[in-house]
Amino acid sequence: MEKFFIPKLAVVGVGLIGGSLALALKAAEAVGEVIGIGRGLANLEKALELGVVDRITRNPAEGVSEADLVFLATPVMALPQVAAEVLPHMKRGAVLTDGGSVKEAVVRAIEPLLPEGIHFVPGHPIAGTERSGADAAFASLYQGRRCILTPTEKTSSGALELVRQVWETAGSDVVEMPVDKHDRILAAISHLPHMVAYSLVNAVSSYDRYEENILEYSAGGFRDFTRIASSDPVMWRDIAMTNREALLEMMDHFESFFAELKEDILSGDGSRLFEFFQRSKKNRDAIL
Amino acid sequence: MEKFFIPKLAVVGVGLIGGSLALALKAAEAVGEVIGIGRGLANLEKALELGVVDRITRNPAEGVSEADLVFLATPVMALPQVAAEVLPHMKRGAVLTDGGSVKEAVVRAIEPLLPEGIHFVPGHPIAGTERSGADAAFASLYQGRRCILTPTEKTSSGALELVRQVWETAGSDVVEMPVDKHDRILAAISHLPHMVAYSLVNAVSSYDRYEENILEYSAGGFRDFTRIASSDPVMWRDIAMTNREALLEMMDHFESFFAELKEDILSGDGSRLFEFFQRSKKNRDAIL
Repeated sequence: MEKFFIPKLAVVGVGLIGGSLALALKAAEAVGEVIGIGRGLANLEKALELGVVDRITRNPAEGVSEADLVFLATPVMALPQVAAEVLPHMKRGAVLTDGGSVKEAVVRAIEPLLPEGIHFVPGHPIAGTERSGADAAFASLYQGRRCILTPTEKTSSGALELVRQVWETAGSDVVEMPVDKHDRILAAISHLPHMVAYSLVNAVSSYDRYEENILEYSAGGFRDFTRIASSDPVMWRDIAMTNREALLEMMDHFESFFAELKEDILSGDGSRLFEFFQRSKKNRDAIL
Repeated sequence: MEKFFIPKLAVVGVGLIGGSLALALKAAEAVGEVIGIGRGLANLEKALELGVVDRITRNPAEGVSEADLVFLATPVMALPQVAAEVLPHMKRGAVLTDGGSVKEAVVRAIEPLLPEGIHFVPGHPIAGTERSGADAAFASLYQGRRCILTPTEKTSSGALELVRQVWETAGSDVVEMPVDKHDRILAAISHLPHMVAYSLVNAVSSYDRYEENILEYSAGGFRDFTRIASSDPVMWRDIAMTNREALLEMMDHFESFFAELKEDILSGDGSRLFEFFQRSKKNRDAIL
């Protein structure tokens, strides 16, 4: 079997997500040259210095012109604009992919822009830390993590296979599913929990009955529980705006469970309360 | 200064909380004999074998009769019954304290039962892990953790001072506050987050649009965020039933923030969404 190899890879947005894919492919010797494209010169120079990329440019048109694969790793709401900038300059036969946390909005924006002979494979590596920037990138970020690809009827099977190999080479467990299924599942397991955590921290912080910061009484549980409320506000604004429908559906779903629990507390129904907590513990323990 | 010493300590409920206090006081050589009292013989025997306690009995009346200090470390809803069992058998001048996560319901139930010459100091060490039982106990559990004491107008200052020394000897940072303030602060920083976590896990687990367990797609964030939903259902049933008023108030407070966020998502107001997430991140980062 021929070894999988990408002569030239362009990464737009050399942060944790883009930089880590570059490092993983370099570590696997699966890539020739990596071109880092971005707006901030300081971050690009840091990426070059750290060996995350081999060449840098702030000019997307120039950066992608020779690339065999272009990976868009910017915040979700920047993807349509960035795609519009790079697509006219990509070479025929090249493949475009992305790492956006929301897929329907991205596919709807990018697919109509595709020139003849350029292929797009929508993707989403489920990985990340609270850190960001080129110096947060590391080669093993994707090891053992899921990467969801959401091919559409326009996606070429060859391009899909290439992108699958890219993520598998980076150590990911690649799963394919329809665009809308991705957005609903992510709304449930990731977007909803973030909305809940952000709301919880704001609710508790604003509780001003006492003239002291009650968060200082919080123990490890609260800190662990609210860690995700420290995530990047720009990223989450973008997700909340682009996966609106699925997210609102899950928020309603959560509210009905929360209301049921409130009802049981109000009526003091011990056996229903026990059952509610027991069921949750069982489901939670199953994913430990 | 005379060294602080308790000749005989009785611990009712020799689990993580009761056992760890016994171990901490033993490690500090601040206690003579520790009598372990409980219902389950296997757990008591394990506590004896591990040296958590020096003597065991399933008879509370006998166990507390010579004790200078009695620590009730059972689930919250068992406290009134246990107090009623031990109080008539405690020696004059002895002190009773507890570790219940809710204070008003406990004080209301126990204070009317106090015989002449027996003192009660309501307390709550803010510490714990998901583990339980005598073999989960360890001497350093309370090191650097807050312990809240909620003296009432009936609490003797001598007894309060004794219990304060006990917790300081165990390594705790002791804070005093009124009963209702304790219950409201705990509702905010601990009880509400647990209700949110339990509801979230049940909401996500019950999302059955797809014929697979979507929790399998969850990454580290979801696991960390929902860890507290693995807590003991009996303990949380008791808390939800005994701190009902303060908890319902905080649940309403949370719901209003969650509804505000939903409104901003519905209207697609990016600057309000950014501000909501940014504020939360700032508050969360401040307690890191």
